[in-house]
Amino acid sequence: MSVLIVGSTALDSISTPHGQHPRLLGGSASYASVAASFFAPVKMVGVVGDDFPKPCLALYRKHKIDLEGLQIVAGRTFHWSGEYETNMNNRRTLETELGVFETFTPHLPVSYQNSAFVLLANIAPALQHHVLNQMRRPKFVVADTMDLWLNIALPDLLKLLKRVDGFVLNESEAQQLTQEHNLIRAAKKIHRMGPKYVIIKKGEHGAILSARNKLFVAPAFPLDHVVDPTGAGDCFVGGMMGYLSTADGSVEANLRRAILYGSVLASYCCEGFGLTALTRVTRAAIAKRVKEFEILTRF
Amino acid sequence: MSVLIVGSTALDSISTPHGQHPRLLGGSASYASVAASFFAPVKMVGVVGDDFPKPCLALYRKHKIDLEGLQIVAGRTFHWSGEYETNMNNRRTLETELGVFETFTPHLPVSYQNSAFVLLANIAPALQHHVLNQMRRPKFVVADTMDLWLNIALPDLLKLLKRVDGFVLNESEAQQLTQEHNLIRAAKKIHRMGPKYVIIKKGEHGAILSARNKLFVAPAFPLDHVVDPTGAGDCFVGGMMGYLSTADGSVEANLRRAILYGSVLASYCCEGFGLTALTRVTRAAIAKRVKEFEILTRF
Repeated sequence: MSVLIVGSTALDSISTPHGQHPRLLGGSASYASVAASFFAPVKMVGVVGDDFPKPCLALYRKHKIDLEGLQIVAGRTFHWSGEYETNMNNRRTLETELGVFETFTPHLPVSYQNSAFVLLANIAPALQHHVLNQMRRPKFVVADTMDLWLNIALPDLLKLLKRVDGFVLNESEAQQLTQEHNLIRAAKKIHRMGPKYVIIKKGEHGAILSARNKLFVAPAFPLDHVVDPTGAGDCFVGGMMGYLSTADGSVEANLRRAILYGSVLASYCCEGFGLTALTRVTRAAIAKRVKEFEILTRF
Repeated sequence: MSVLIVGSTALDSISTPHGQHPRLLGGSASYASVAASFFAPVKMVGVVGDDFPKPCLALYRKHKIDLEGLQIVAGRTFHWSGEYETNMNNRRTLETELGVFETFTPHLPVSYQNSAFVLLANIAPALQHHVLNQMRRPKFVVADTMDLWLNIALPDLLKLLKRVDGFVLNESEAQQLTQEHNLIRAAKKIHRMGPKYVIIKKGEHGAILSARNKLFVAPAFPLDHVVDPTGAGDCFVGGMMGYLSTADGSVEANLRRAILYGSVLASYCCEGFGLTALTRVTRAAIAKRVKEFEILTRF
């Protein structure tokens, strides 16, 4: 089954201790779509300006991402630039230029509206609502978010939580949303806000999946060389949704393995600037690393 | 087989958001010995003053800990007092009174010198050396440490690393010792300093075991209520060594499960002030939580 993914589509200028790379393909929808594309056909929803580089479109096409829902409008593409500190855990935004993203309203082509799996990747909750309003009867809807929306669009986000099956957020966002430092208690509070599945991303420390009184805790795939962590969280959730959409059996039964796959996609993402490492990966390499990951975590 | 454990024996006055408790039994040897005692007979080496409360001795005896190596000398028992912040991750030492610990020289009774498993729990590296010097031919020696010794006794510690099979330290200590933020690379550097097995504790985020080109990554047992994390790291390594000393097969083959057991012992430790929760635990409860932990982490 195909996965519908809405989110940001951007050009990122990234500086890390390993180098500087201007105007790389970025944005939550780009990362999540490429990650999901290894498992399933992806229908992407987003907006770019008429300055959007052709090689970026070619990258989407290489991954057979359906671009019918990608609006190309007059103006400049959303541009983000940021800098990572030596330890790669802290990053500083240097500049954000919204461009055509400022007035983006996602329109779903008819061929998108029946998608069974929907990933509302990180984007304003109002736009996530707008996409859901256009869907027929999706089987499984997951939303991701970021601290910005907790700060400036909390009422919209809280309403969204009542409409999704799964909610993905990182450790500090979970703590901020619930005013609860303990992540297990934070997950319980988030369940009461709506979602049946709560997934808390802890970066290099792995992830927690909470499914109403059932927990799953997973480490991250260990990397000895992180080149650029930008987009790793988006790749995690994109890989997870891609895997889920094609696995046999119930979503609940497949979620743990989906997190394993998501972690592996995120690990590839960190090994290169932007999407450069991930786009070179093969399905065989992913299967091999998943196997390796299973061995690394087996008691 | 019995486990020999040397470390500090102390009275701790602990303040957390959940309460204040003065003069609880503490110290790395106390925590590690109680944790190990669920699996194997423990021979403890330490020192206390003549003010040491009888109920603390009774607690050791309840766990059948061999106290022939516990010196009781005139003077005051080592006393530490500390306070945890609301999030329980940061703690502040309020007072340290070394007392009889200041002039402690560990003497090993003859009956201790043939122990096969030796845990050099957190204590000055010079004293860890001194214990090793008195041992015949231990089968497996593990050392733990703390940031203090990296700061004031690094040459001693580096010499010790050439004499131990396994070295346990926490995330920030590994980073400080190696000047390397990435923990996988940090572990590789520590191997080059001597130990065949490097175990990096990440508290609520689990642990990494590195065994020369072989990695094992484990999450921590998830707790929704942490009362007092004091001693959790000592219980982790104590539980690990206790399990190892009684498991059939090679140490290398058993280390992963030993870490699982260590994590479970550490989790019990966090559920009460000082040793109060751990000392009430039964072998059956440990087996049940280990099972639960396996289910929580199974893909």
